[in-house]
Amino acid sequence: MAEQFDAVDVIRTKRDGGRLDDAQIDWVIDAYTRGAVADEQMSALAMAILLRGMAMPEIERWTAAMIASGERLDLGSVTRPTVDKHSTGGVGDKITLPLAPLVAACGAAVPQLSGRGLGHTGGTLDKLESIRGWRAGLTNAEFLAQLDDVGAVVCAAGAELAPADRKLYALRDVTGTVEAIPLIASSIMSKKIAEGSSALVLDVKVGTGAFMKSRDDAAELARTMVALGTAAGTHTVALLTDMSTPLGLTAGNALEVRESVEVLAGGGPADVVELTLALAREMLAGAGIDTDPADALRDGRAMDVWRAMIAAQGGDPTAPLPTARETHVVTAPSSGVLTRLDALAVGVAAWRLGAGRARKEDPVSAGAGVVLHAKPGDQVTAGQPLLELHADEPVRFERALAALEDGWEIGDTAPARKLVLDRIA
Amino acid sequence: MAEQFDAVDVIRTKRDGGRLDDAQIDWVIDAYTRGAVADEQMSALAMAILLRGMAMPEIERWTAAMIASGERLDLGSVTRPTVDKHSTGGVGDKITLPLAPLVAACGAAVPQLSGRGLGHTGGTLDKLESIRGWRAGLTNAEFLAQLDDVGAVVCAAGAELAPADRKLYALRDVTGTVEAIPLIASSIMSKKIAEGSSALVLDVKVGTGAFMKSRDDAAELARTMVALGTAAGTHTVALLTDMSTPLGLTAGNALEVRESVEVLAGGGPADVVELTLALAREMLAGAGIDTDPADALRDGRAMDVWRAMIAAQGGDPTAPLPTARETHVVTAPSSGVLTRLDALAVGVAAWRLGAGRARKEDPVSAGAGVVLHAKPGDQVTAGQPLLELHADEPVRFERALAALEDGWEIGDTAPARKLVLDRIA
Repeated sequence: MAEQFDAVDVIRTKRDGGRLDDAQIDWVIDAYTRGAVADEQMSALAMAILLRGMAMPEIERWTAAMIASGERLDLGSVTRPTVDKHSTGGVGDKITLPLAPLVAACGAAVPQLSGRGLGHTGGTLDKLESIRGWRAGLTNAEFLAQLDDVGAVVCAAGAELAPADRKLYALRDVTGTVEAIPLIASSIMSKKIAEGSSALVLDVKVGTGAFMKSRDDAAELARTMVALGTAAGTHTVALLTDMSTPLGLTAGNALEVRESVEVLAGGGPADVVELTLALAREMLAGAGIDTDPADALRDGRAMDVWRAMIAAQGGDPTAPLPTARETHVVTAPSSGVLTRLDALAVGVAAWRLGAGRARKEDPVSAGAGVVLHAKPGDQVTAGQPLLELHADEPVRFERALAALEDGWEIGDTAPARKLVLDRIA
Repeated sequence: MAEQFDAVDVIRTKRDGGRLDDAQIDWVIDAYTRGAVADEQMSALAMAILLRGMAMPEIERWTAAMIASGERLDLGSVTRPTVDKHSTGGVGDKITLPLAPLVAACGAAVPQLSGRGLGHTGGTLDKLESIRGWRAGLTNAEFLAQLDDVGAVVCAAGAELAPADRKLYALRDVTGTVEAIPLIASSIMSKKIAEGSSALVLDVKVGTGAFMKSRDDAAELARTMVALGTAAGTHTVALLTDMSTPLGLTAGNALEVRESVEVLAGGGPADVVELTLALAREMLAGAGIDTDPADALRDGRAMDVWRAMIAAQGGDPTAPLPTARETHVVTAPSSGVLTRLDALAVGVAAWRLGAGRARKEDPVSAGAGVVLHAKPGDQVTAGQPLLELHADEPVRFERALAALEDGWEIGDTAPARKLVLDRIA
């Protein structure tokens, strides 16, 4: 069959700073998905988009075309209001684990189609897989039944949602074209819109441990995603949150599950609790539910949903969590205030300890990671533990320590941390 | 074997406006040639180069790396001074045909490794192949022997010269990354430098029928190529020449051979003679030969070398040239001065008549093409022939006429044409 367009003409249009029209976008996404536009053509187009940008109508159409490349979930059978959350990824970001059962405990249905980690930020599925028996794969029927009964599901996204995005993301990863806001926004939102929930809250991270290092870039990404969600009829709000230092006191799979259970039990680190509640309030507002989620943390309802959610997917919420075979403690060389503890340094250290993977087929270690004994602003005493490294093989400590070398400082005063930096609706 | 660099890092460096260092360039060209850098990575890099540019030291190294990907011809056994010519391609540009024997007749050796035509500009090998018996393929030994004996060789370039360029050019063609001056300049010059002649004259075309539509772009390309040649130790000069209207009165393979023979016989259209002599003077100066090439045209020495050159490659210089089976004449609708005759329109018409190919595996028609009965500035009378179309199948006339529709104008006065616009050394 003759193609409707010539890929070179489409590439040239964007290369020369022009605007792609709807028909060009529909064609190029469809033709790429079925192989009529080659990888080398799409990567040249992606680089042109990265350097020339896209106008909002182009990004909207690009997102719609990626959604149209696959199926859309139909959540019509779910009786509760549906609301979803997406984080752009950070170090120690276990928020989905307490958040999904908490919001479900307040009456909403929370479908969380998640991924595995790649690089220095962990994946939610990797974390939950450290729980004995828990499985990430569900059939469509199981997914819908659990969503209605329990109210919260965290599971693997199927291949049928936005297959164009899956193919394009793999290409961008090897061609230096990941960092294009129009492509990041459309990649995230095509999957989230295809998942079909009525409301969506975005947690856009800013800082050294985040994908977006600058607040301006993060705000632009957030505005673009909110506009895409709103245009598609999904009630969408974004919070810009700090990722200059890890969230909570742990980075690593089982370590983060343990900390999440502490939060569900009414304790846990203050920043994890603060962000969980801030996101829960936005999700409940999006779902039209007027209740204070702090009550459901306090009275154990969120913990009940957590146990039901884990058990529904074969997991044993009472089983002991795996631990790493070896630990290594980094102590404070002097007394003072911990003025800086860099999120990226901790993330890379946890990754090198075995918590993350370099290639998508690599296994991860459930017990590996980093435990923090102090956070920026805390007083420390010479000789006290600062960081505790966990790994299955002691040979991993050296490279993890190298990542941490310039990752922290002890001084006189630390700047106050503002966790939620902005709200974009 | 582990690779020295990561392709994504190299792409990102250029994407973010940085300068590639020598080691990165050497690696990326070598790794691409052996397949360790994928097509989709190289096309993203090519797009980044197109949009971000390259500094002169980068272009020099890129060119050197492409030369190093293959062999270099050794012309050391040739006793005459060697001098080469390259044209960026135009409509009716048959200049190589009279020029190579003319310069050889004056004492230089002229190795012309040429290509076939693609699109609206013809290829020198296609033109010569309309001569009965002539063959483009020579062994290395035949090539060197003919260069020394006859002084002129026009033949096909072997696959062993700059294979990286061959692979990269095919990729750029399908990814919208042809129009990058650093990549155009390095592509041309890597082959020309690898051919090993001591001097080189570049004919950089400007105008509608040329690859470079603007004089600024053409001048930048010329300056870049002259700098590359000079840095490589090749005496290099460029002329910027007009390609707003075809060269001479013919566009088409056998039609252009006929016109070239007229020039060698001391006649022919004034512009073809002027450009042939201008380029011949530059080539002879580059070769250090102090003689007026007009004498060798006048006294028949150039024609003698032409006959020897054709015969040495199996061709019969006395055989009648093929003609197309059908002709169609376009007449002037009114009297006046032909004020414009567009090079691109004539080039596309000749191509559609069968003189050129759309894909590199297509055959060409030896007899097809366009004969001009008037050039811009000429007085024409209503009803007189303006253009004569030649094709083997009458069905081709309609599409050729469509290409010519807005290609010419009759009015009161035509601007004077300046053929050689600039000289860059």
